[in-house]
Amino acid sequence: MTAQRTGGPHVGGRHRGDGAPGRGTDDTDQHQETQLSVTDQGATIWLTGLPSAGKTTIARELAGRLAAEGHRVEVLDGDEIREFLSAGLGFSRADRHTNVQRIGFVAELLASQGVKALVPVIAPYADSREAVRKRHDAEGTAYVEVHVATPVEVCSVRDVKGLYAKQAAGEISGLTGVDDPYEAPAAPDLRIASHTQTVQQSAAALHALLTERGLA
Amino acid sequence: MTAQRTGGPHVGGRHRGDGAPGRGTDDTDQHQETQLSVTDQGATIWLTGLPSAGKTTIARELAGRLAAEGHRVEVLDGDEIREFLSAGLGFSRADRHTNVQRIGFVAELLASQGVKALVPVIAPYADSREAVRKRHDAEGTAYVEVHVATPVEVCSVRDVKGLYAKQAAGEISGLTGVDDPYEAPAAPDLRIASHTQTVQQSAAALHALLTERGLA
Repeated sequence: MTAQRTGGPHVGGRHRGDGAPGRGTDDTDQHQETQLSVTDQGATIWLTGLPSAGKTTIARELAGRLAAEGHRVEVLDGDEIREFLSAGLGFSRADRHTNVQRIGFVAELLASQGVKALVPVIAPYADSREAVRKRHDAEGTAYVEVHVATPVEVCSVRDVKGLYAKQAAGEISGLTGVDDPYEAPAAPDLRIASHTQTVQQSAAALHALLTERGLA
Repeated sequence: MTAQRTGGPHVGGRHRGDGAPGRGTDDTDQHQETQLSVTDQGATIWLTGLPSAGKTTIARELAGRLAAEGHRVEVLDGDEIREFLSAGLGFSRADRHTNVQRIGFVAELLASQGVKALVPVIAPYADSREAVRKRHDAEGTAYVEVHVATPVEVCSVRDVKGLYAKQAAGEISGLTGVDDPYEAPAAPDLRIASHTQTVQQSAAALHALLTERGLA
């Protein structure tokens, strides 16, 4: 199931001859099979990792760089989008799965329209991430999985949101990587050891991968 | 609350000098205040009306025309997007409100990225629709409300999904416009008497409004 979309040329601006291939839905128009400009190639770039791993920081750094280059960019921040799309959902396995699928749905919609959708969201379960990737594959939308692989020992010292301290104090439970599962990706498109380098270096590594794949 | 976004130039393709005004979030880049091509002007176009009023049919007709002209277009069909984003929600006033806000959130994200987001969704409550409009206004994103004003007598004969028959047979209840409220917009941007004209004429009237507003 996906939202219906017209498969018309996803061109921005005035170069209307630059048609995108159709998306094979309910649009019967003829599509030109010419090459898109790279800035019109949307993609979902999912940054998975523990709390305080640096996902959002790297995503924002990359977003700034991509936007400066003329790409359409959207950062779908986990906490904020969860508040809007998933109010009422908790942090059980099932609810985390639903939350990830909803964010994945929105990211795919944006990516299918030529946006680089950066998603710095924990997404602790491998099968949830795989389901998001599969729907992107089914839609022909680029999907890049990045593991921000900061060790829990480093994350718990950074503790940007104070979650590790609260968990240690017994004020909260179900903290991913501590007393709730985190299934690290076995074969991500990129694994970033963000604790060994600067934010700029991490973003640059991801930018290089996007360039290599014709997405930046 | 909105998802964070980079306020960088929302340009598609190769004309990178064509910068959009910034969105006033966390992007500190300088933005050029030059005029965008009309096809880069996103907008949410919400078609509200009773079941079987013709909302989706008109939206698809318009979508095909806009796509053929080179616009980015997405049709956020009510039933399908509800299944994905609002599983677990029912048809109470509160749940209908939440569903409309979620769809409005996604539409605004798309529209802010230069997409024409067409939303053929009942949205029976005036305050729900107003909340969606206000968030668009706050983000500086164009919002157009269209009332597909087919009378219930016509809708119940069309009865595309068999809902009116089921309600009459006592199999369902809470049908908008019959035994559940529908608050018709007092001052929509456009009111379409779709039962008095062809689908093409209805879509053309909406297209004319978009053109008038520099959105098509």
